[in-house]
Amino acid sequence: MTVWLNGTLLASGDAAIDPDDRGFTLGDGLFETVRVAGGQTAQLHRHLGRLRAGAAVLGIPVPWDDDALGAAFAATIGANAVRDGSARLTLSRGPAPRGLLPPEASRPTGLITAAAASPAPAGPVHAVLCTTTRRNEWSPLSRIKSLNYLDGVLARIEAERRGAGDALLLNTRGLLAEASAASLLVLRRGRLLTPPVSDGALPGIRRALLIERCGAAEASLSPEALREAEAVFLGSSLGLRAVAALDGQALSRRDDLLAELDRRTR
Amino acid sequence: MTVWLNGTLLASGDAAIDPDDRGFTLGDGLFETVRVAGGQTAQLHRHLGRLRAGAAVLGIPVPWDDDALGAAFAATIGANAVRDGSARLTLSRGPAPRGLLPPEASRPTGLITAAAASPAPAGPVHAVLCTTTRRNEWSPLSRIKSLNYLDGVLARIEAERRGAGDALLLNTRGLLAEASAASLLVLRRGRLLTPPVSDGALPGIRRALLIERCGAAEASLSPEALREAEAVFLGSSLGLRAVAALDGQALSRRDDLLAELDRRTR
Repeated sequence: MTVWLNGTLLASGDAAIDPDDRGFTLGDGLFETVRVAGGQTAQLHRHLGRLRAGAAVLGIPVPWDDDALGAAFAATIGANAVRDGSARLTLSRGPAPRGLLPPEASRPTGLITAAAASPAPAGPVHAVLCTTTRRNEWSPLSRIKSLNYLDGVLARIEAERRGAGDALLLNTRGLLAEASAASLLVLRRGRLLTPPVSDGALPGIRRALLIERCGAAEASLSPEALREAEAVFLGSSLGLRAVAALDGQALSRRDDLLAELDRRTR
Repeated sequence: MTVWLNGTLLASGDAAIDPDDRGFTLGDGLFETVRVAGGQTAQLHRHLGRLRAGAAVLGIPVPWDDDALGAAFAATIGANAVRDGSARLTLSRGPAPRGLLPPEASRPTGLITAAAASPAPAGPVHAVLCTTTRRNEWSPLSRIKSLNYLDGVLARIEAERRGAGDALLLNTRGLLAEASAASLLVLRRGRLLTPPVSDGALPGIRRALLIERCGAAEASLSPEALREAEAVFLGSSLGLRAVAALDGQALSRRDDLLAELDRRTR
């Protein structure tokens, strides 16, 4: 495999992260996972916009402009001959002496990887309501795609342990926020609803497209809303899928609508 | 500098973290920062106990027993000729293909670094009450020392921006939890109090020693408690210090007691 690291294409075996990189020592960084279709990235400008917004929150400089990052994605995808799959950009604050305070002059690390075999969620999923952890809507981290991804990992581990494919996370007030790595959409009385960012939902790219193109609206949702819904969907850059059951109970489905929403937000 | 990486001492320039290491891609791992005094680690068995407890929460196997890790710390400290300073052990889940679910067989990464120049907090500190973010007492991550450390980083950045040395974090219910990287101790009516783990306080090693040896008790504390306190201290493995002021207002001090507590909990 070939990766892009700080401006250079390298065999993945030759790519090394400094043990002092704050991405490794503190999870101090961001990432974006971009869908690749027909050898091209999808919605890249939106992903890069979100990356820059997150970098501003953390105060991490982004040493490359969008054209340079676009070329880096294309080169990485080309070098790995990926037709359909995904590519991931990781941006960390880079190596630094220890201590929490960032160094005055950061040397950020940029890494792009691409893979044909994507872990894209596909098909209807059985989900559980996560009991292990909750999203922290009080933290700016809930609104950026940072490398602090362990709550999502814990939720996904819980789902697996309970025989499910994904877990829905509540926020600290008991309202729905999102799934382990996907936005939550609920169809209720014909309206498509999704938890607001202020409830701990990551501003997902697919979520934004569903709002802009399909009339989805932000609304706080309690877990009870799922049982009354006409359909429940999970959406990410990599896919849109139905939630077929929650905690073992079947949910109502609208697979016709799902297919249409998917087509309109790719 | 010499580091210990997966059982081998290496020049730090030769030590490389795999770009697919989940410590780097997801913050999927743990760390311990241990005080080094006179060339020896302090309280190492407690640190390793906490590391193992955290590894159990995350489901990360620890491939080395305490004797092996003790020898690794000693070798790293010796190779760097550190007399007084700190050493850090990072344990990540190791390299894995993408996706949130951990691989069935993890190959964890263990890294030990040691430095004479320690960022140990020393002397009285001016603190602010953090407004940027809050600790999530709903997450198991608040009770383990994981690599998801960005809330602490954000708090420390806010302190710096506001001309202070540290920030005190509230939990999601508005109760005090801890500082950016230290436990909070409050002296009130002659009693030493510290927020309970259930309020989002990391079970700190120094904190445990203050409870066991100095009669500190767990008690939920509101920010108002700080103004009424006879003294406010911040304690970590690296040091114990007075909070001299909060949000620009001087706090009551008991530096005689501080020195005694420090001596008894090293």
